Amino acid sequence: MSYYGGVEGGATASRTVILSSRGDVVGRSEGAATNHWLIGIDECVRVVHEMLVDAKKNAGIDPSSPLKSLGLTLSGGEKMKFQQEMEGALRRLHPSSSLSYTITTDTFGSIATASPRGGIVLIAGTGSNCQLVNPDGSVYSCGGWGHAIGDEGSAYWISQRAIKVVFDAEDGLQEPEHDVSWLKKTVYDYFNLKTRSDILPYLYTNFQKPVIAGLCQMLAKDGKSDRLCRSLFYAAGEVLAKHIRAIAPYINHDMLSVSGGLPIVCEGSVWKSWDLLQDGFLHTLYPPGSNPVHVQEFSLLRLTQPAAIGAAVLGAKKVGDKLPIDYSTHVTQLYHFASSE
Amino acid sequence: MSYYGGVEGGATASRTVILSSRGDVVGRSEGAATNHWLIGIDECVRVVHEMLVDAKKNAGIDPSSPLKSLGLTLSGGEKMKFQQEMEGALRRLHPSSSLSYTITTDTFGSIATASPRGGIVLIAGTGSNCQLVNPDGSVYSCGGWGHAIGDEGSAYWISQRAIKVVFDAEDGLQEPEHDVSWLKKTVYDYFNLKTRSDILPYLYTNFQKPVIAGLCQMLAKDGKSDRLCRSLFYAAGEVLAKHIRAIAPYINHDMLSVSGGLPIVCEGSVWKSWDLLQDGFLHTLYPPGSNPVHVQEFSLLRLTQPAAIGAAVLGAKKVGDKLPIDYSTHVTQLYHFASSE
Repeated sequence: MSYYGGVEGGATASRTVILSSRGDVVGRSEGAATNHWLIGIDECVRVVHEMLVDAKKNAGIDPSSPLKSLGLTLSGGEKMKFQQEMEGALRRLHPSSSLSYTITTDTFGSIATASPRGGIVLIAGTGSNCQLVNPDGSVYSCGGWGHAIGDEGSAYWISQRAIKVVFDAEDGLQEPEHDVSWLKKTVYDYFNLKTRSDILPYLYTNFQKPVIAGLCQMLAKDGKSDRLCRSLFYAAGEVLAKHIRAIAPYINHDMLSVSGGLPIVCEGSVWKSWDLLQDGFLHTLYPPGSNPVHVQEFSLLRLTQPAAIGAAVLGAKKVGDKLPIDYSTHVTQLYHFASSE
Repeated sequence: MSYYGGVEGGATASRTVILSSRGDVVGRSEGAATNHWLIGIDECVRVVHEMLVDAKKNAGIDPSSPLKSLGLTLSGGEKMKFQQEMEGALRRLHPSSSLSYTITTDTFGSIATASPRGGIVLIAGTGSNCQLVNPDGSVYSCGGWGHAIGDEGSAYWISQRAIKVVFDAEDGLQEPEHDVSWLKKTVYDYFNLKTRSDILPYLYTNFQKPVIAGLCQMLAKDGKSDRLCRSLFYAAGEVLAKHIRAIAPYINHDMLSVSGGLPIVCEGSVWKSWDLLQDGFLHTLYPPGSNPVHVQEFSLLRLTQPAAIGAAVLGAKKVGDKLPIDYSTHVTQLYHFASSE
């Protein structure tokens, strides 16, 4: 029996799985963040190795026996220079970990978990990002530039706009589209503001992206009947759909005709509010009377299994092994659209 | 002879002056940042005291002889809690500094340097902010919430949008209004980008607001003939004017009829590009055919003397002393507008 490891690396936590050559998950483990932008390569190597030993033990494999392959799909892992350094360090420091390595960025793991023929992943979590992987292996992306210039449609983006709407309204700088009182109360409650300048530490000295983004959960939970709050999620739906429009010209034709339509893997907690995003999303893809995107059918999919499985599949693929996997057990359908034309 | 001190506190540097009761600047000194959000109150007290001793020596006054008053207009000094703590610490640690203290935020110092009857200060430096001080002492502000939710029209804001336009264009997320090639080359040159992901350290791990804002200087210097670059400054002019529109309803009537019109003190290096801001600024205040702001005449003024003078004037005012000052020597006129109606 051969074994194939997969690591899904995130900016806050990571997961590892071991697949058998029958395609079953036989070992699992969890670990800390493995985004090297945040923690450095040395720490990244340490966490990966620790998870790998744990997962091997969990699978009942001798930790000193190398895997046939290891796939790592890591947040922040998009640059070849990093991939080479990371593989070099793993081979040098832990030579018995695996015989083969495949290192890439996290979005690839998500797509490879959902489908063997590629697809799109559209992340709307704390941040946002979109990537297309075609069946021929070609790759296109849109976004992923962080909160300072991007992250459109993410929890951070929605929260930042919520705060801005409230402050701009009070300043008289920009009149809000709808009554601002519910949103104001919610922003003041979330950040525990007594005066407006109490917001400054959150935006300067104690700036933490996840703290700002956390407001979004409160908006999603309690703001469903507030018109201004709904308009923020509508705008998020619009801008998320703009990512799909941006990469649509590069989608391989045969991916548009698969059963269920174009697979779009939706990662991140903002998708829990699909009911609030839907109108803006569809309106942007198919604006009434003008210029619809050339995607006749699509499915929004949510992963029900760790994206580490996809990482393992990519690792196995590199050594020429195609694992027998039932992809339908890895996803649920969030939404299905088929053009009536 | 009585002496009156003034401190102008910034986020990168600070200045101190000593005025005689004849209104002359008899001592000067400079020091480090005094924004307590960035350095803490202890360090703020230390820097202020050091500057004060230097300025007294420069004026030929015994450092142990207290001033009649000390006015401090400090960046980040808007909250009463800070003002009380700061005064308490200065009185406790350096009891011979001054007999009286007046502590407020930096915008007040700028206005008090330009005019004895109040006015507007509109800051467009690294960040942005707008404040109105009426002759009756009433105060209104708009903006000043920092780069995460505001800073509209600032060097950071212009630079952030420049980067975003380039990245959104390459992503296909948003088509630029005009040809993007000059702006792309300039952004790539400034940040020394070989690939797009080379921008990520600037936006994450090594994020520094002044570094991002520094791009604006290059745009202002070399982009005057580039349509896309001009459109960024036009937009900055628009949004700076929106600050004036926002506080216009609160302007005391008699400030609108002074000679030269409403005084607007323009602080920050973005104003060096007034030629690029002007069209957007005027178009927003007086949109052709609709709803002009009710300001018939205004003057944009640039300070030619340190705003520490205004701080000293405010300190003197608190102890009932009105210093004989020729305000016309403190400013130059950047622009004058008078409605032809």
